[in-house]
Amino acid sequence: MFYQIPNQRPATPLLDSIDTPADLRRLSAERLAQVAQELRAFLLYSVGHTGGHFGAGLGVVELTIALHYLLHTPEDRLIWDVGHQAYPHKILTGRREQLLTIRQQGGISGFPKRAESVFDSFGVGHSSTSLSAALGMALASAQQGIPRQCVAVIGDGAMTAGMAFEALNHAVHTQADLLVVLNDNTMSISPNVGGLASYFAGVLENSAEQAGAHAKAQVQSAPPASASSSASALFTELGFSYSGPIDGHDFDQLLPAISSVLNTSGPRLLHVVTRKGKGFAPAEKDPVGYHALNKIERESASVTPDKRRRYQQVFGDWLCDTAARDERLIGITPAMSEGSGMVSFAQTFSDRFHDVAIAEQHAITLAAGLACEGMKPVVAIYSTFLQRAYDQLIHDVALQDLDVLFAVDRAGLVGEDGASHAGSFDISFLRCIPNMVIATPSDERECYQLLDAAYQYPGPAAVRYPRGKGPGAELTDTLTPLEVGKAHQVREGEQLAILNFGALLPEALAVGDTLHATVCDMRWAKPLDHALLREIANSHRAIVTLEENAVAGGTGAGVLEWLQAEGITVPVLNLGLQDVFYEHGSRVQVLARAGLNTEEIEARIRNWLKRHD
Amino acid sequence: MFYQIPNQRPATPLLDSIDTPADLRRLSAERLAQVAQELRAFLLYSVGHTGGHFGAGLGVVELTIALHYLLHTPEDRLIWDVGHQAYPHKILTGRREQLLTIRQQGGISGFPKRAESVFDSFGVGHSSTSLSAALGMALASAQQGIPRQCVAVIGDGAMTAGMAFEALNHAVHTQADLLVVLNDNTMSISPNVGGLASYFAGVLENSAEQAGAHAKAQVQSAPPASASSSASALFTELGFSYSGPIDGHDFDQLLPAISSVLNTSGPRLLHVVTRKGKGFAPAEKDPVGYHALNKIERESASVTPDKRRRYQQVFGDWLCDTAARDERLIGITPAMSEGSGMVSFAQTFSDRFHDVAIAEQHAITLAAGLACEGMKPVVAIYSTFLQRAYDQLIHDVALQDLDVLFAVDRAGLVGEDGASHAGSFDISFLRCIPNMVIATPSDERECYQLLDAAYQYPGPAAVRYPRGKGPGAELTDTLTPLEVGKAHQVREGEQLAILNFGALLPEALAVGDTLHATVCDMRWAKPLDHALLREIANSHRAIVTLEENAVAGGTGAGVLEWLQAEGITVPVLNLGLQDVFYEHGSRVQVLARAGLNTEEIEARIRNWLKRHD
Repeated sequence: MFYQIPNQRPATPLLDSIDTPADLRRLSAERLAQVAQELRAFLLYSVGHTGGHFGAGLGVVELTIALHYLLHTPEDRLIWDVGHQAYPHKILTGRREQLLTIRQQGGISGFPKRAESVFDSFGVGHSSTSLSAALGMALASAQQGIPRQCVAVIGDGAMTAGMAFEALNHAVHTQADLLVVLNDNTMSISPNVGGLASYFAGVLENSAEQAGAHAKAQVQSAPPASASSSASALFTELGFSYSGPIDGHDFDQLLPAISSVLNTSGPRLLHVVTRKGKGFAPAEKDPVGYHALNKIERESASVTPDKRRRYQQVFGDWLCDTAARDERLIGITPAMSEGSGMVSFAQTFSDRFHDVAIAEQHAITLAAGLACEGMKPVVAIYSTFLQRAYDQLIHDVALQDLDVLFAVDRAGLVGEDGASHAGSFDISFLRCIPNMVIATPSDERECYQLLDAAYQYPGPAAVRYPRGKGPGAELTDTLTPLEVGKAHQVREGEQLAILNFGALLPEALAVGDTLHATVCDMRWAKPLDHALLREIANSHRAIVTLEENAVAGGTGAGVLEWLQAEGITVPVLNLGLQDVFYEHGSRVQVLARAGLNTEEIEARIRNWLKRHD
Repeated sequence: MFYQIPNQRPATPLLDSIDTPADLRRLSAERLAQVAQELRAFLLYSVGHTGGHFGAGLGVVELTIALHYLLHTPEDRLIWDVGHQAYPHKILTGRREQLLTIRQQGGISGFPKRAESVFDSFGVGHSSTSLSAALGMALASAQQGIPRQCVAVIGDGAMTAGMAFEALNHAVHTQADLLVVLNDNTMSISPNVGGLASYFAGVLENSAEQAGAHAKAQVQSAPPASASSSASALFTELGFSYSGPIDGHDFDQLLPAISSVLNTSGPRLLHVVTRKGKGFAPAEKDPVGYHALNKIERESASVTPDKRRRYQQVFGDWLCDTAARDERLIGITPAMSEGSGMVSFAQTFSDRFHDVAIAEQHAITLAAGLACEGMKPVVAIYSTFLQRAYDQLIHDVALQDLDVLFAVDRAGLVGEDGASHAGSFDISFLRCIPNMVIATPSDERECYQLLDAAYQYPGPAAVRYPRGKGPGAELTDTLTPLEVGKAHQVREGEQLAILNFGALLPEALAVGDTLHATVCDMRWAKPLDHALLREIANSHRAIVTLEENAVAGGTGAGVLEWLQAEGITVPVLNLGLQDVFYEHGSRVQVLARAGLNTEEIEARIRNWLKRHD
């Protein structure tokens, strides 16, 4: 058991000898416990060094070793659902040293990635995709006549998402040779909710003390926990061949159990019980807090602490303030209570808080149902996960013009989590939907005010705000209400006008100063402030639109559409995300790559003006 | 039993006395069988008269009567999943006469619709939304302290969609008073596939002969079929209180069973077995063929039969031709084999055909898995249902740049099915996704050629084509390959150029003739043909873009973005779908309302030119 994160790189002589899983397979089974011990030590050191996802990896150290030991990866396909849990996998597949650069620009990704390694069979950032992907691979292998194991390792939390169920259902129909390893740590990121969680809890009742004892003790030899008759019911009823539950930290259970399921065919499920944060005392005690870790700061804290608030805190405060005033407010999250800033709301207004588990589709249609009855649901959802519930937003909310507020978090670039988690498209995919209004706050204060305005709007509304801290605007007591579709000019200039939508307002203002440009804080992507647009177009020679969303179909496109519809011809430069997926890096680095920091924005405008003159 | 559809309106004296469910509730239970008999006769006559969804309604005649008889609708909330099955509900809730106008412009909708009746608690066109919506209503009622039944009636087919599972899971967590009536007719639209279907089949094994006998016989008194011990396992394991299966055509089983579950609380599921097409011999025999019915033509067939082919046939032919040449091709459908034109492919290439059930999310990530292994998956999916799998398209296919072809069917307006089924947004939501290419064929021949081109393109590609018949282009033996991103000019004009994307080319050409305009068949929404665009912009005074997609973020916006990025300033008029949901009507009528028939297009261009001159 580790009690603190090592400051010095630990000695890992056995681990250092393993460059590929083939090296691992040359070891005798007795030495795997030592590999696990060293891997865990290195993982602790490494994540302490770089920051990153933490608890999930610690929980699957033994499972990862056992799978690579018994499978013939990369010929066999091993898919890690969500990908948070793939750090040990990366260490064992030739990326031990690169782990020290994980999630950094130029370094390896925080998630499995096909372009990074042949051992990463499938790119996974969003949860619950592994079963479908592994089934596709299994069907392809069967079609091609290639005998091959296709294994998906999926957490119990990810199992609550509908697409996992769809895949289970179809797998049985095909009778494909698919092995599902259910990594049951009784939590996804937050503790799980729902019938499935209770079900797993029931399954484990019989073997709970046993597993618990194992989890606390060092790895030791013990007979496999035998499944109670009820344990297998759910998956067996669906048609899976079920085995387990076994202790996922005990090689003496893991190796025979995995060997055994590898020797059978058809859709099989092996139920493995692990502990998130296993082997690191603080993480075992607080697995939610240790889901991911910030890099340990080695410098002494002589710098002034940054008191700016995160947008998530602003949302959380707004939610609590509004719930106190309006008992119709219902807060909904698909398993992202902490990340979304809803912890305080969940505690204070527990009867109006719904964590629906990883179930974005359900979250939104649930909100639609609530809205039908006169409640005012607020769905807090990351932009990238809103993609999971697009049809529900269109068909169940917007088509019926229901009063649902979407607090669209992590809009724009997200930095270290990379392309899979960026919120690059929400303006494009929401702007085309009738009845929607979309707000794009430019600072903390405006975020609060626009949440207010969107909440009061009696139809479907979205407020999109970025990950992390704002520029530091104070939230005063007197927050004037903001009108839907009303923009305002924040800098008066001449000839050139910059129309800013969202969090890049500081950059817009800096460039405005240099170029003597008018700068408008547009506030709403939809509806646009037509009066202001007309005035700006009539009084300036050129317009720049600025947003942290794809240029294709974004707010800039909206401005073009309206100007053309009105017959107003003025040169417009659309600045935003280009037609590429941006790899991970710090937010500052990725903004620079996207040409959206102050220097790049200014340079791009100057070049464009030059071409026009 | 009916053997043919009545030509004359049948006498339905008892039914005629029922204007609301309150009238129904005044009857003695003994008279309900007579109501059912008359309702079925009227439904047959009416759907024969208007066309529309057929089999599902016939299957739930007794269930609908029993539910309205025992519930206090509209105070109690009754939600019909998918909505195909809601015709009897409409007849009993004051819309008997209006049923003769169903799906027609100005008439009632083919689906439940909140704006149409207080008895339509939730608008349902897409499947599997009812559980989430009903749960939201149940939670709201609990919050408001209003005692109220919230009942979702969901087919076994709709139960395969992930979001239904998400809702089941969350319902158990909340312990809300939700009643789920599982209407098990062993098929959704096509026969079901998957573990769940096998599971239901197993459940019914014990009582199968009994239910079968009932289904074939007239309604008769019999003891309820008792559930075998295994019957309840799946839902019970999840935490639902399960009862059934019962014969859904037998009031002597329905009434006591429904009364009983209404008197209990918490999440409950009542398993009801029905027969799709019940009571109409041809539909019982061929429930897939009788899913929906075309209007019976009363005129003698003196007109020349329309030999033009449906785009779905073109796709089906292309699929078979290509599969014969390329054994890597795998065809995937989420339960829409017939509608998508895949029947012949499914028969000829059964080992390369996957109907994954109503499971759009899984369908696409399955395709991603197949593509990882070098197969070439083709996913046939309606535009409106692709919204269900948007994240999978982005995160699992496009982000990994995998070689998956999306045959996006029912793109644009769909006519009688109305707003819930229109494919109005796909260009907007696909165009912003990096790595995607998107083709928009303008006739049958080009559809075939563009499917070819998109299939050969080694990354994610979509070909969008409309519902129904094309203009009649011949498919000759020599089909030249079309280049990705290459448009072509089909009419040479002057001053004005019409850039057409997709199925409205005949309209564009007609307007082009009148206005002496250049007309280009753009073929690709992404990438655009930049060389042609530049040439057109340089040689014309004004440009019109034409598409059957939302103007917001559509191809017209793409044209504007590119012209502005290149510094080309030319007036552009974007014609496409406005920012509204278009209600049902014939395709011709809805196109007219959208201003997209020849007359409207011409008038709108003339007005716009006038303003510019």
